[in-house]
Amino acid sequence: MQIDVVANIGEARTDEFIHKTVIVIDVLRATSTMIAALGNGCKAVVPVETVLQAKELQKPGDLLGGERFCKKIPGFDFGNSPNEYTRSAVQGKRIILTTTNGTRGIQKAMKADHVLAGALTNGGACAKAAVNFKRDIVIICAGTQDVFSLEDGLCAGLILEEIGKIAGVKNLAINDFGLAMRSCYAQAKDTLLDTLLMCANGKRLSKLGFQEDLVTCAKVNDTIHVPVLDRDQMVLLPF
Amino acid sequence: MQIDVVANIGEARTDEFIHKTVIVIDVLRATSTMIAALGNGCKAVVPVETVLQAKELQKPGDLLGGERFCKKIPGFDFGNSPNEYTRSAVQGKRIILTTTNGTRGIQKAMKADHVLAGALTNGGACAKAAVNFKRDIVIICAGTQDVFSLEDGLCAGLILEEIGKIAGVKNLAINDFGLAMRSCYAQAKDTLLDTLLMCANGKRLSKLGFQEDLVTCAKVNDTIHVPVLDRDQMVLLPF
Repeated sequence: MQIDVVANIGEARTDEFIHKTVIVIDVLRATSTMIAALGNGCKAVVPVETVLQAKELQKPGDLLGGERFCKKIPGFDFGNSPNEYTRSAVQGKRIILTTTNGTRGIQKAMKADHVLAGALTNGGACAKAAVNFKRDIVIICAGTQDVFSLEDGLCAGLILEEIGKIAGVKNLAINDFGLAMRSCYAQAKDTLLDTLLMCANGKRLSKLGFQEDLVTCAKVNDTIHVPVLDRDQMVLLPF
Repeated sequence: MQIDVVANIGEARTDEFIHKTVIVIDVLRATSTMIAALGNGCKAVVPVETVLQAKELQKPGDLLGGERFCKKIPGFDFGNSPNEYTRSAVQGKRIILTTTNGTRGIQKAMKADHVLAGALTNGGACAKAAVNFKRDIVIICAGTQDVFSLEDGLCAGLILEEIGKIAGVKNLAINDFGLAMRSCYAQAKDTLLDTLLMCANGKRLSKLGFQEDLVTCAKVNDTIHVPVLDRDQMVLLPF
């Protein structure tokens, strides 16, 4: 099984996703948020690029979520904090979500056979789901404005480690960037929250008062919920 | 001190090098070869992009070195193996060197105040030289055809570790990619040759019979020689 890890969305080449399973990672915070929302009973998350698209797609009963520059968009029901998407707030609802990087990553992956959303919180479950699809895998670290983000790389490393446990390390062909991320995760996994606090997005979120989100997003294998793309929306993969 | 690590030449933005020190890394094998040649008494290494440029620049007494697809160019004196550049072969000579990635990296860095060539063999010395220049630092992992190469990332991690020892870890502001490479090196440093054998270039060189080059290029802090750009050629930094 070939597994390639891509450092940021700008480097992702759409045509390379054909017949593959793509895992999109945006740990801080889009994919962590999708996982939390779907895990708490939300019906579907529709990722869109712009605020206008979000408003146009909204049907009665739908909720709007999203951020620009880490902050909630005026008039929206939620920002991009996984802790906002509680069961009482989201159960049975459809959420239109617009975030800067995670959404772009999912839209870029649409040519793949399967598109999953991965984060530290569901790394093991996401690895298992990806292996079950029996395709080569591309892991896209969403990054921030086409620049690599450490937390996404660490999550790619976690998923590679988990895939190795399932499929056997010797059966995997991993690109150089993936090998680097796997080593990086192995080195950092015992001090993951500290590492998240050191990286650019972690610092930015801390400064804006979102420390609790970092704690939530750093919980490795906290859930078995895996969002999967079904036409234009993310739904929960049956398990 | 700000230190940014860039994953491949395609991502390097020339304008960001102004007033900075740039370290170009192409462990397998261009910068390892330059270090070996200059360490063995060669007068200067002139990095050029094309075979034609190399031939045009050659003056009486100059030697030609370089590779295409890992192999020596027909009619050239040397390939791109550091082990070829022995004292008896290179002492007092100027070498015109054309390689695929390392040369492009150096040419892209030319707007910087100082341009150094780094490899695993001179990581510590290179770190010391860069700190002495008292500028912010950009470390360019040359990579291969605009794709990240693990061995260059490991070397970036080594240089960051060495800079940390000199300048104090707390005095460094490192971009996310640099933080990842530092962790990756910390994880891999005790099994460096094995790791080099696992990465794409390591496998390719092994297959072509260059295992000895991998052993040579994996020798961490084997030398104190640091090539520095002086107009259009690399010379030895005085120490």
